[in-house]
Amino acid sequence: SVNPDLASERQTASFSVEKLTARLDGGAEKTRIRRAVVEAIERDPVFSRENQYFQSQNERYEGAVRKAVHLQKKMNEMGWTENGPEFKYLYRAVSGDIAFLLHRIFMRSISMLGSDKQIAKWIPPATQYQLIGSYAQTELGHGTYLQGLETTAVFDITTQEFILNTPKISAMKWWPGDMGRSATHTVVFAQLYVHGKCYGVHPFIVQIRSLQDHSLCPGITAGDIGPKMNFEHIDNGYLMLQNVRVPRENMLNKFCEVQPDGTYVRRGSQKINYFTMTTVRISLLSDEVIIPLMKACTIAIRYSVVRRQSKLKPGEQEAKILDYQTQQEKLLPQLATAYAFHFISDYLQELFDRGYREIQRKNFDTLPELHAFSSGFKAIVTQQCTSAVEICLRACGGHGYSLLSGLPSLYTNILASCIYEGENTILLLQTARFLIKCFKAASLGHPVPPSVTYLAAVKPRTCPAKNKLDFLSPDIYTEAYQHTAARLLSSIAAKLQNLNQSGVKKHDAWNQCTVQLAQAAKAHCHYITVKNFVETVERLETKAGIQKIMKHLCDLFALHGIFSNTGVFLHDGYLSGAQMDMVTASYLDLLAVIRKDAVPLVDAFDFTDKSLNSALGSYDGQVYQRLYEWAQKSPTNKQMSPAYERYLKPLLHNTLSKL
Amino acid sequence: SVNPDLASERQTASFSVEKLTARLDGGAEKTRIRRAVVEAIERDPVFSRENQYFQSQNERYEGAVRKAVHLQKKMNEMGWTENGPEFKYLYRAVSGDIAFLLHRIFMRSISMLGSDKQIAKWIPPATQYQLIGSYAQTELGHGTYLQGLETTAVFDITTQEFILNTPKISAMKWWPGDMGRSATHTVVFAQLYVHGKCYGVHPFIVQIRSLQDHSLCPGITAGDIGPKMNFEHIDNGYLMLQNVRVPRENMLNKFCEVQPDGTYVRRGSQKINYFTMTTVRISLLSDEVIIPLMKACTIAIRYSVVRRQSKLKPGEQEAKILDYQTQQEKLLPQLATAYAFHFISDYLQELFDRGYREIQRKNFDTLPELHAFSSGFKAIVTQQCTSAVEICLRACGGHGYSLLSGLPSLYTNILASCIYEGENTILLLQTARFLIKCFKAASLGHPVPPSVTYLAAVKPRTCPAKNKLDFLSPDIYTEAYQHTAARLLSSIAAKLQNLNQSGVKKHDAWNQCTVQLAQAAKAHCHYITVKNFVETVERLETKAGIQKIMKHLCDLFALHGIFSNTGVFLHDGYLSGAQMDMVTASYLDLLAVIRKDAVPLVDAFDFTDKSLNSALGSYDGQVYQRLYEWAQKSPTNKQMSPAYERYLKPLLHNTLSKL
Repeated sequence: SVNPDLASERQTASFSVEKLTARLDGGAEKTRIRRAVVEAIERDPVFSRENQYFQSQNERYEGAVRKAVHLQKKMNEMGWTENGPEFKYLYRAVSGDIAFLLHRIFMRSISMLGSDKQIAKWIPPATQYQLIGSYAQTELGHGTYLQGLETTAVFDITTQEFILNTPKISAMKWWPGDMGRSATHTVVFAQLYVHGKCYGVHPFIVQIRSLQDHSLCPGITAGDIGPKMNFEHIDNGYLMLQNVRVPRENMLNKFCEVQPDGTYVRRGSQKINYFTMTTVRISLLSDEVIIPLMKACTIAIRYSVVRRQSKLKPGEQEAKILDYQTQQEKLLPQLATAYAFHFISDYLQELFDRGYREIQRKNFDTLPELHAFSSGFKAIVTQQCTSAVEICLRACGGHGYSLLSGLPSLYTNILASCIYEGENTILLLQTARFLIKCFKAASLGHPVPPSVTYLAAVKPRTCPAKNKLDFLSPDIYTEAYQHTAARLLSSIAAKLQNLNQSGVKKHDAWNQCTVQLAQAAKAHCHYITVKNFVETVERLETKAGIQKIMKHLCDLFALHGIFSNTGVFLHDGYLSGAQMDMVTASYLDLLAVIRKDAVPLVDAFDFTDKSLNSALGSYDGQVYQRLYEWAQKSPTNKQMSPAYERYLKPLLHNTLSKL
Repeated sequence: SVNPDLASERQTASFSVEKLTARLDGGAEKTRIRRAVVEAIERDPVFSRENQYFQSQNERYEGAVRKAVHLQKKMNEMGWTENGPEFKYLYRAVSGDIAFLLHRIFMRSISMLGSDKQIAKWIPPATQYQLIGSYAQTELGHGTYLQGLETTAVFDITTQEFILNTPKISAMKWWPGDMGRSATHTVVFAQLYVHGKCYGVHPFIVQIRSLQDHSLCPGITAGDIGPKMNFEHIDNGYLMLQNVRVPRENMLNKFCEVQPDGTYVRRGSQKINYFTMTTVRISLLSDEVIIPLMKACTIAIRYSVVRRQSKLKPGEQEAKILDYQTQQEKLLPQLATAYAFHFISDYLQELFDRGYREIQRKNFDTLPELHAFSSGFKAIVTQQCTSAVEICLRACGGHGYSLLSGLPSLYTNILASCIYEGENTILLLQTARFLIKCFKAASLGHPVPPSVTYLAAVKPRTCPAKNKLDFLSPDIYTEAYQHTAARLLSSIAAKLQNLNQSGVKKHDAWNQCTVQLAQAAKAHCHYITVKNFVETVERLETKAGIQKIMKHLCDLFALHGIFSNTGVFLHDGYLSGAQMDMVTASYLDLLAVIRKDAVPLVDAFDFTDKSLNSALGSYDGQVYQRLYEWAQKSPTNKQMSPAYERYLKPLLHNTLSKL
């Protein structure tokens, strides 16, 4: 039975939860398919995550391999294919708890960078798991800066082979998933040398383990990099190469080839591949970042209407903690953020699909803008969602700190997204570099990409709002964001120019501006997110209360952003102190409004109890019962600890007395 | 040998590291004693933390019990006593990785709340570990709000016993340390009923496990609450009571007693005990919060001069990441924060020692101020240090995410401090309540405690700074903090008054102001921290470069606070936009200045490699070598995973082909 404190929250929903779910999925039919996939997976005991919080790293890894192997069978059974409509829900359905993800990257890199011949040789056996691949790029001493990789591949003309080496410890491959214990092959990125000349980093297919008995191949040292904050199920690995020889044909050679006589040939444009790499940053946002935040919101908000603490008014029952303004102010902006980023992620996905079609037509004009989008949004979405999940965790007090709440693993999982696929600060600076370029172009009256035309219009202005209700007007707040983003950029552009003109070297000048450049890039992305949320709301159907509640959330997202960054809006007087007080008033008012629909708004994310895997977040709100049941299953309760016989008993018995 | 990239950082220190260490310890003699304790502990293999990152919750618990038992022996051996000068360094020396901490709370609660007779009965056997105690206050459904506890203790006049019960699942005791598997006794907090009348929450000594064989006593259900984000070594437990009878003498009765005929008697003042509880919040700051931040800074800063990434200038070697402004801006403010909080913690400790002496003389005048201090500073220090450790972790990229960096466990450990000993938001609101009271008193011209006299002087003002160097004047920035703290408080006090006057009920009005009240409380504590840092710097000796570098750090701490909260300083025009640009310029300049001394500044914290337990943070900077060595010791590399025989081999062999 549902806890009455949670049930009552659902009776007063101002909108149709089912309709909102369909909208989030992109249509009722998609909701149906997603649910069917989730149900089929969750009914299958092999995919159970029931004891996950009690398992060791070894057990997690074994489970992930078991699931990966079983998933192949399941897909056959169910008739799901990689191109079918079900495929994209599989990852969500298994909650990412599965091995061989790098095997896919291995295949994709061959498909993208390999010749037709190489594709024909490697892809069919990889598809059938006659080999297991990995992708070895990052080194112990080298991450985002690829040119710095130290692994070498020297062409030996006499044997027509490349000789791969790890010249020093910092060159050891480190972090690649599926490599620590599973992979038989990997794509190694190494500096290519021919006749003593370095041609830069190239990819080579290298076998690392025997297909017969899985023993390491000659010259290979490999293993698991040990415990991490999360991803215990993945065997992130290390790899050292000592005079490992691979045939000339193992260099992926769609774009560059070393011919038998050692001639280095480059051909075609790699732009489309850079683009594909760029899209990874956008495509990971939904599954790896936004869904975890949605789960965290679901858990924290459901718990906050079941948990009672202190009294709002003397003589009354203890209050639901979500009735406290401070708790609303912690959680509801995170809920609005989840919706805002869901919509921007949809928008970016569409933009990139369109970009892809253009690029296939050899039109590369939108590439710089798309690259700037993918870098900036990867950075701000991962960063804000990570903070948001942490807020959800802390908002649940002590029980949030228990692994059984599900929140710690959501947090440690999402935290990694700030680091992988490009470190966030570096990405923001790439976006900033694009913005500076566009700003200069716009100042000179040159044409700029559509997302940055607003930069041409920087001028001193003030906000026309007269009272707190004016700040519920999307025009008012969107303009404030736009103005501020443009001002931050123009101000750092001016500083950069001053430094350059005063004789500071170009690279020093850039370095001295990076803190503010990163800030400007964030402001740009924040503005685009607000603008997109506003436009999304305008397009929503007005019936079933969907548009109305989304408008409230959009307002909340926008005003929370102003409330949390008041300085940048006040700095040039665009907003006055008095106007900022109006923003605060409207913002706090909105909290009370959205609080009423908080539970229906997380119900609309439509997570099953199994996918939440949380003692605090289940649909029925039986929080305490579940915490107690789950705790009893912990290995710490399985038997009396050996510590008793070894240490406690001797201590207590030494001088045992009657008490 | 020391990595040359790290060694070179030490050659250019602008101050004496050894002298600064002595200053942090409170004198060279204390440094000597601390080092002797740390050395004795670290030389003893029983206290080794070498394999900690590979251990299961069960292994961690057993290790902590072993260490706790061994520590008793060690103390005898070394001649260390609880009142000796060595004692306070023990916890730091074992890095908190030890059991029976709640046993101490058990003893303290008896000493404070028990009669002389009870103390004589229980303390001697507890001291000799003839029993192991715990402290059972928090329930599944009840945390900070003690009055809400649901456990009952009904006086049975016929048998002269109390009958203890857990009436429903939310009343189950949950979280007490040492209770899940170790304790034989505990102090249970329960609602006292005599003749059907409830007298509120009282403490009762209850035996929960047999002293003979450790089996649970009749009517007792107890166990471990399972996995948590950290503290795996502590057996946080649950406890359910069914008609458990304890003799009348087991209610701790220094202040209240139930007499044989059921008469309830209250005597004396408990104020001194409330005060002792309050001091816990201050005394935990150093060991549990500031030292972890110091460790995180040490690890991240040492790593940042060893790690090289990308090029600042074309043609040069890859740059140390600490040479990037963005990396400096991440780490150096956290370093300044560690120093700022070290000094405020010293200050608060002194203040509380003085307060204790006053209270012993029955002068309770300072109690409200001290309570406000302990609540507010517990909240802001734990909150800011937690964020700071997270920043350090993220600033180390992928390697920071490895448990072997030591940063994940520092983070998950410090995060708990935001929750235990009072939830931070509730604590901030207690400070706010005190401030509002003082503000009203000050407005009426009544006397107020010294720390809040500044509230009487709120008036519109503007900052007199004319150029960026003016912002390196402590008077300038201290005044800015003071003005802002006073303005925030006066503005929310006005809102509160308006709401009350417009007929909103008192409790609703308070709730509607809590977000801003918490903000005002933070600003107050921030101001006091800056002021104390400034005063500390003024008192430092000028020789050996100590005062100069501390002045820089103080400036950085203050300007970082303004730079990160520009809005509150700009809101009423106290700072203009132009002045804020000066703050930013001075702040960014300081980063480059302090960067030069960054490594000596963390060296001064004087952590041994064993206490850091970090592959990234060791004194010698051999980061990559150590990561590789430690990873090889991981259980994930001990043998071929059973996953190979079970899943991978069948998969690969089904259709094994030659490649």
